[in-house]
Amino acid sequence: MTSPRTFVIVGGVAGGMSAATRLRRLDERARIIVLERGEHVSFANCGLPYHVGGVIADRESLILQTPASLGARFALDVRVRTEAVAIDRDARTVLARDLTTGAEQSIGYDALILSPGAAPVRPDIPGVDLGLVLRDIADMDRIIAAAQHARRAVIAGAGFIGLELAENLRHRGLDVAVVQSMPHVLRPFDVEMAHIVAQRLRANGVELHLGTTLTGIANDHVVLDGGAATLPADLVVLSVGVRPESGLARHAGLELDASGSIVVDDEQRTSDPAIFAVGDAVVKHRFDGDPSPVWLAGLANRHGRLAADVIAGRPHAAVPALGTAVIGVFGLTAAAVGRTERELREEGRAIRVIHTHPTNHAGYYPGAEQLALKLVVDADTDAILGAQAIGGGAEKRIDVIATAMAGGIPARGLADLELAYAPQFGSAKDPVNMLGYVDDNLIEGELTVQWHEVAGKQAEGWRLIDVRTPGENALGAIPGSELITLDELRDHAERLRGERVIVTCKVGQRGHTAAALLRQYGVTVANLDGGYTTWWAGTAALAPTLVAA
Amino acid sequence: MTSPRTFVIVGGVAGGMSAATRLRRLDERARIIVLERGEHVSFANCGLPYHVGGVIADRESLILQTPASLGARFALDVRVRTEAVAIDRDARTVLARDLTTGAEQSIGYDALILSPGAAPVRPDIPGVDLGLVLRDIADMDRIIAAAQHARRAVIAGAGFIGLELAENLRHRGLDVAVVQSMPHVLRPFDVEMAHIVAQRLRANGVELHLGTTLTGIANDHVVLDGGAATLPADLVVLSVGVRPESGLARHAGLELDASGSIVVDDEQRTSDPAIFAVGDAVVKHRFDGDPSPVWLAGLANRHGRLAADVIAGRPHAAVPALGTAVIGVFGLTAAAVGRTERELREEGRAIRVIHTHPTNHAGYYPGAEQLALKLVVDADTDAILGAQAIGGGAEKRIDVIATAMAGGIPARGLADLELAYAPQFGSAKDPVNMLGYVDDNLIEGELTVQWHEVAGKQAEGWRLIDVRTPGENALGAIPGSELITLDELRDHAERLRGERVIVTCKVGQRGHTAAALLRQYGVTVANLDGGYTTWWAGTAALAPTLVAA
Repeated sequence: MTSPRTFVIVGGVAGGMSAATRLRRLDERARIIVLERGEHVSFANCGLPYHVGGVIADRESLILQTPASLGARFALDVRVRTEAVAIDRDARTVLARDLTTGAEQSIGYDALILSPGAAPVRPDIPGVDLGLVLRDIADMDRIIAAAQHARRAVIAGAGFIGLELAENLRHRGLDVAVVQSMPHVLRPFDVEMAHIVAQRLRANGVELHLGTTLTGIANDHVVLDGGAATLPADLVVLSVGVRPESGLARHAGLELDASGSIVVDDEQRTSDPAIFAVGDAVVKHRFDGDPSPVWLAGLANRHGRLAADVIAGRPHAAVPALGTAVIGVFGLTAAAVGRTERELREEGRAIRVIHTHPTNHAGYYPGAEQLALKLVVDADTDAILGAQAIGGGAEKRIDVIATAMAGGIPARGLADLELAYAPQFGSAKDPVNMLGYVDDNLIEGELTVQWHEVAGKQAEGWRLIDVRTPGENALGAIPGSELITLDELRDHAERLRGERVIVTCKVGQRGHTAAALLRQYGVTVANLDGGYTTWWAGTAALAPTLVAA
Repeated sequence: MTSPRTFVIVGGVAGGMSAATRLRRLDERARIIVLERGEHVSFANCGLPYHVGGVIADRESLILQTPASLGARFALDVRVRTEAVAIDRDARTVLARDLTTGAEQSIGYDALILSPGAAPVRPDIPGVDLGLVLRDIADMDRIIAAAQHARRAVIAGAGFIGLELAENLRHRGLDVAVVQSMPHVLRPFDVEMAHIVAQRLRANGVELHLGTTLTGIANDHVVLDGGAATLPADLVVLSVGVRPESGLARHAGLELDASGSIVVDDEQRTSDPAIFAVGDAVVKHRFDGDPSPVWLAGLANRHGRLAADVIAGRPHAAVPALGTAVIGVFGLTAAAVGRTERELREEGRAIRVIHTHPTNHAGYYPGAEQLALKLVVDADTDAILGAQAIGGGAEKRIDVIATAMAGGIPARGLADLELAYAPQFGSAKDPVNMLGYVDDNLIEGELTVQWHEVAGKQAEGWRLIDVRTPGENALGAIPGSELITLDELRDHAERLRGERVIVTCKVGQRGHTAAALLRQYGVTVANLDGGYTTWWAGTAALAPTLVAA
């Protein structure tokens, strides 16, 4: 009988703990030691913002496991407040320091798994130490303590955690402003989609300062754009990104990428074959060569399990990360997968873009909610490159599209997906099916223009025809458009022969019917993708002072 | 310029109307005539039960289009109360009869699309004419009129429409009994899953008579099982299945299958190349050669569009139908796709079956609901053959699995799906991922037993060890089980070496950990799939008088 192996895991949250428990199930005899620098292992980091707002009332419910419970069930040797301070790769030992006593111990390992996570970035600005961050339970406690005496919070960064915190600080009754250097919230979305989230934030009293950078923090205010403006603030939270906690790996000479993330192969192995790494400190192999980093709990857990499998002799490969994500913002759901139009256009990729605005279930059944959907497709291969959904049932549609992407289903194949339908759950033609139908029409030669292309086309001499009703038109229309309702269009078609026409309606559906009609009369016709609804959102987002709500 | 073509469509609901509007978009010049025998075209047939219960308050909202609106927008010639009574295939004419005046007209066609639907079966029993059915708006009006004076309704058939009606008649305050000849409700589910729905029905005052056949109807009661019992009833609805309305096709000599459904190729073409057929009267090409018929609005719409595409010169092929379906029952969601364990075992197929009972989102976030999931997998190829989900987020998980099936993702591949996670929407390891992990464990050699196999194994000498807590055990345990909690099991493992053991917990998760542990001590160990929860549901469903709730 061989002697038991020793596995050391650095970091006891998400990926690290998934690896530890999986290793135990695969190897009952192994010695498994988990070193965690913080107070807690296996806490619910994604739940932290919600305890700040009281949505999750019970703080203890965020602590999913304790060293004692993990010892009893999985025979894990879990050591909290214990930091791994050095790795001797030749000797295969890791030096662990007890942060309470300062005592150090060298622990031999047969395999080492690094799951150190990533730390919130603290920008190099005056007063940065006055800003709080939110990474662990101690951070959460600090924010709650500060919020008890605060009236006015400023959050730097309108990413997932920043917006979740904004909502929860509003729940506590604070005034909240969010400062974001990008021109829109939520980087995984494009501007016209993110604008829907921005409207929801503003409607709930969150002040947004977009395209604005936090450049200083003082006791009672923050400084914006190098002194261009200030905002009163007695609570400041920095949520402007994270940096990998790869110091231990760097000192051990493991390969890092330019951003400092630990480089791993598709079995989560670092440049040292006895050392694995998982979670937020690690380079992810991204779908479509996406260069953006991704920090997601699901991937950390999955890769932790994978590393354990490889160590235990069940090798398999990680699949590329799609970056599927979802956030709830004051009851509005926003979900996304894959790549944005913005990134792909910057790369010069040939893409098709589709916007739709269906209801999340049959309109005649009570409670139907608006859903804004966007699909980004490779124009040559019809591969789905990304999708964004905001509104009722958004996360369901993104899960379906993420699964289609994993299965290699092309965009037009979305039309043939057979999704569960009853009037309270969907439509006989589900919104995802409709995306496939629209893509199919584009492949078959239907032309569309995007909201940001309308003005340019008009300048080139294209006519813009609004096929909505006079009542809809009166509530707001694109400058330069003329009104011919869809039901009257057939009577006008002959005189449009030979012209170049953009048709527009509310969401693009009547426009599709109008375009199909006019094309058969010899009109060069393009449908405004997503209709007035998408055009308005994008235009309002970019020029908030020019377009009325 | 060629002369315009004429397309005649028989049946103006779902598939027929999808075909008509699609044809118009593809061919502006064609003459398109829709013949509809009933009063209404394009009505929301899936919404009918909900107007009976007042959930959909406005009757007019069920009528989605009128002949006038379709004429104005799509230049369709829609004739209601007009029946197609004969087809002359050689002359390519259809004889249309105005049901109001009796006048007949012969209409030439270039292509004919049949979308006649299916009619509720009226069994050959005494008093059958006293029973109502629910197919169209006139039927709905009759049920509402009868319900106004009724106190006690009996519904024959516990399929989707039968149960939707049961719920809605309860909403009206009637006593409701459902009579079902199968031993459980909802044929697309297996008995232990259907039992969860049955419990919800009973908890809401619906009386269930399962394994019971309605054999007669009288003015104030119905007769069960040939006189074995009676039930008081002043309203009886028959919902025991449908038969294709293929009389017109039969008389025209088109090929039908043994059940009377119209045979079509994968472009929806009948045995006459100028005649297409779609919807509930048509044979569907089923996934995995599934022999069960399927009637779903989504397929009807999709196939209607497909037939129009083929006629207009854009041929493509229908994909096999999975039979994805969902129903809401008193707030409980039940969804399914593909094939059942019952059918596959009857066919003698080698399958793996997986039951899980997760919550639909992170347990620490308020509002988490129970979800029962079942996956049926081909034991040789790992292909997903079917799935069933009941509870919170059921339809989302079934949509994801249906998409995975369409994309050819094997069951273990579900582990790698990257699904949207935030604590209010899911878990870092989504329930669908967990199904993949369990399948992976089975592939790697973990043994499980199904709830219906426990007694047989015990008879063969297997020990049954309950690894739950004493408190859980005291609330109910499988006869013959002994209690050793999971956290104590390691201390008992050595003395079990060489034995055959079934481990059982609440849902199968602790059982998996227990099995992984014992196996490494040389125990032949199988985990009870789905734990006590699944065992109880299946056992209670089959022997309701033997097992207490």
